[in-house]
Amino acid sequence: MRLFTTPASPWVRKCLVTAMELGIDSRIERIPTRWPHTWATHTVDFAPEFIAATPVGRIPALVTDDGVHLVDSTAICDYFNAELGGYRLLPASGEKRWKLQSIISIASGLVEAQVARRAESLRDPVEKSEDFIEKMRAREHRCYRAIEPLVPWFEGEADLAQISVAVGCSYCDFRYKEDWRAGNPQLTRWFERFVRRPSMQATMPGETPQH
Amino acid sequence: MRLFTTPASPWVRKCLVTAMELGIDSRIERIPTRWPHTWATHTVDFAPEFIAATPVGRIPALVTDDGVHLVDSTAICDYFNAELGGYRLLPASGEKRWKLQSIISIASGLVEAQVARRAESLRDPVEKSEDFIEKMRAREHRCYRAIEPLVPWFEGEADLAQISVAVGCSYCDFRYKEDWRAGNPQLTRWFERFVRRPSMQATMPGETPQH
Repeated sequence: MRLFTTPASPWVRKCLVTAMELGIDSRIERIPTRWPHTWATHTVDFAPEFIAATPVGRIPALVTDDGVHLVDSTAICDYFNAELGGYRLLPASGEKRWKLQSIISIASGLVEAQVARRAESLRDPVEKSEDFIEKMRAREHRCYRAIEPLVPWFEGEADLAQISVAVGCSYCDFRYKEDWRAGNPQLTRWFERFVRRPSMQATMPGETPQH
Repeated sequence: MRLFTTPASPWVRKCLVTAMELGIDSRIERIPTRWPHTWATHTVDFAPEFIAATPVGRIPALVTDDGVHLVDSTAICDYFNAELGGYRLLPASGEKRWKLQSIISIASGLVEAQVARRAESLRDPVEKSEDFIEKMRAREHRCYRAIEPLVPWFEGEADLAQISVAVGCSYCDFRYKEDWRAGNPQLTRWFERFVRRPSMQATMPGETPQH
């Protein structure tokens, strides 16, 4: 399988941590991509193999050994968990699936806001909306606050909900250095333990090369 | 179940069409929401029951009879199809699941671009980026072009891939009136048939009330 990646993307990291926790990462060839900061508002020059993999033009994108193209992290993690992972990180059905899915959907809203805010920060100053940045910031903090009382639902070593939340918290530390921990003591205690997992340590974010 | 909705949102429509095709729409109480155009850059005043349903503060949001909150359309459609629909619109596993998921992931990229472009168009003129609008437009048209050769994969009356694509095409007709049909004859022929389905006709988009 070929997975198009960047070091900074929380969506890529979610896929990589999922693959590592399932023990399938050795089957994945990682193809790094580069992004000039103009990506925030412009279509960048895509490498031919990248845009052949995904018409959306975003990372992550997966091309499976069967030639199936999956072009968002939700579909990719679904494939890893269900097809290659025996549903070990998210049950196929039942009450636990929907409890975990409810957390995953909040974490997706959190990470989407983080990435939208990053794009906003890279705009030309004249086109930058401080209101939009504040809107995303407020949404992110509502998400942390909503996850806090759900932390007792986390059971066992790892699952797709824990991975999704941990990637969001860690991205905040990397990019915004804001205090998401204040008022969220359960989330904080859980995160400080979860982030020590080898899958998280091996994927700590770094800046994506521009050229 | 309670589903928070607007008439304009393609994400809401995807959930409604899915529910109708599965024959479960009578079990869903629709709760309309209103959005001043400032939503594009500002946190709007949320109704208490809405923000209690979703910390992300976006539609659609579903609260199930068991009290599970699912706050994006992917999780909601997964719940409808798997838990309530016997996997009739997307198989639980196997080759067909991943072929359909690959199309769904392209359609999600398409609709996300459409909504981001709509938000951009509602910005204060000084903060509006014509480059960003063009970036989204180009992404949308790459998605139509990528789906065109996959249309022969559509089999049977309806599935989650066909619903996802149809909602995107129809939103373009509603909002942008651009010619997504040019160069995509298979997609065009399929759409003109699919859009006549009662589920599509009953959910044609309209403007979301601002107040």
